[in-house]
Amino acid sequence: MSRIVYLNGDYLPEDEAKVSVFDRGFLFADAVYEVTSVLDGKLIAFDGHVQRLQRSCDELGIKYTVDADALLEIHRELVARNEVTEGMVYLQLTRGNPGDRDFVYPPEDTPVTLVLFTQHANLLNNPKIETGMKVITVEDQRWARRDIKTTQLLFPSMAKMMAKAEGVDDAWMFEESAITEGSSNNAYIVKNGKIITRHLGNEILHGITRAAVLKFAKMAQMEVEERAFTVEEARDADEAFITSASTFVMPVVEVDGKPLGDGKPGSVAARLREIYLDESLKQAV
Amino acid sequence: MSRIVYLNGDYLPEDEAKVSVFDRGFLFADAVYEVTSVLDGKLIAFDGHVQRLQRSCDELGIKYTVDADALLEIHRELVARNEVTEGMVYLQLTRGNPGDRDFVYPPEDTPVTLVLFTQHANLLNNPKIETGMKVITVEDQRWARRDIKTTQLLFPSMAKMMAKAEGVDDAWMFEESAITEGSSNNAYIVKNGKIITRHLGNEILHGITRAAVLKFAKMAQMEVEERAFTVEEARDADEAFITSASTFVMPVVEVDGKPLGDGKPGSVAARLREIYLDESLKQAV
Repeated sequence: MSRIVYLNGDYLPEDEAKVSVFDRGFLFADAVYEVTSVLDGKLIAFDGHVQRLQRSCDELGIKYTVDADALLEIHRELVARNEVTEGMVYLQLTRGNPGDRDFVYPPEDTPVTLVLFTQHANLLNNPKIETGMKVITVEDQRWARRDIKTTQLLFPSMAKMMAKAEGVDDAWMFEESAITEGSSNNAYIVKNGKIITRHLGNEILHGITRAAVLKFAKMAQMEVEERAFTVEEARDADEAFITSASTFVMPVVEVDGKPLGDGKPGSVAARLREIYLDESLKQAV
Repeated sequence: MSRIVYLNGDYLPEDEAKVSVFDRGFLFADAVYEVTSVLDGKLIAFDGHVQRLQRSCDELGIKYTVDADALLEIHRELVARNEVTEGMVYLQLTRGNPGDRDFVYPPEDTPVTLVLFTQHANLLNNPKIETGMKVITVEDQRWARRDIKTTQLLFPSMAKMMAKAEGVDDAWMFEESAITEGSSNNAYIVKNGKIITRHLGNEILHGITRAAVLKFAKMAQMEVEERAFTVEEARDADEAFITSASTFVMPVVEVDGKPLGDGKPGSVAARLREIYLDESLKQAV
């Protein structure tokens, strides 16, 4: 089946969904994005994603005011047209096409480019839930504003390939020996029953799933500490996990070749995944 | 006049030059580029640009072998069709369109996307040659591999806007108090007759114009020192300048509001510009 893609007001067959080579998203990576998961045909944490989209635009001075209702309608239309029961809706917004290449931003009334498409994926029964993920650590070489969800994703992509070359699932990035986050997810360790994850700042993405999971953890009386943790601490953790919009909560069982605990997915990750999915499904739209 | 744009083998009216929204250049900034200047209808330093294009591809593991003759033919065809006497040819190459979004690279036989377009510009009589440029210094927030000429250009674009907001022409970026380079050019100061510019490394682009200018400077018995210089040294320089493919050698007369020397374009920059243009025009293709 050829997908239907949304592009600037039109619903197009995917082969026809094309943007100008002069689009700033193509020439300058002057673009932000969001990925919203779909479970049971419904959108998970939709409000959080559109709020972050607004923040990303604001931080970059992209003149765009999120109309949450209009975006919800587009998301739902794409989910329906592409018969997505389980998967993702990807949204990308660029500073538009000024018609010529220039480092200087185009006039503020230049229309943004808005594109959304869907991908089917097996999210709930991802086989990694049973086995857990293995990760390596690599130096974080990204730009300094990782709190803005831009399409400058070359290094995360390179890190993912480094992981693949080592025969593992993902890479956790570090800076001055402290873990920042995974290639496309936030990173957590558990030590002596305490959940430790890096504090918010410009160094990491402010994960929508991260915020929800930490809230649920606290509600469940789990101890949470938001601080930088080292590569050494990660290797010595009792257990570890990641969170992201599309993996929810996913156990990590090995860091840099060192098995964590008994080398099996941990109980904290399992419990948080269960709570997160329960609560998120209740609030799904 | 509507430009003619080259895209994957076709010469298209600019309105029809479009790439898939699934192209990795659009979704991941997984793309490299080159800008070659045109003077008198001829290409400046063409060989250097295609060699660096090959290096960028190699560093990123993009399977592409430059065919310099074929690329020269495309450049010339575009210059002719668009009647470019003075301006630039922009070339961008992406890892192509795998058909679905995934941080993992697509199979190596996925065709790259190759796009080239022209822009007319007044290069030789740029009014800044007479007045000199004013720059501010801003913290360098780019990723760590600036030696690879990728389209992850959001921060350089932001830096340019910061400069504009301050009423000046450009921003020089610094890291640990040492200047790396300008938003889209290499940076130089002159102190006591000595030309100082940052040494090559992952921290700066290996400018084609930079290499040529340094060679000509040495041939002309000018003293050259390749090392990191500080923001403080830049403010206290006798004169300063930038080099890039499209500005050649351009004087800088003010750093962070502080005029350099007598506040007028310096003689070293003027002499290097003259030598560079003479030699480059002789070798233009």
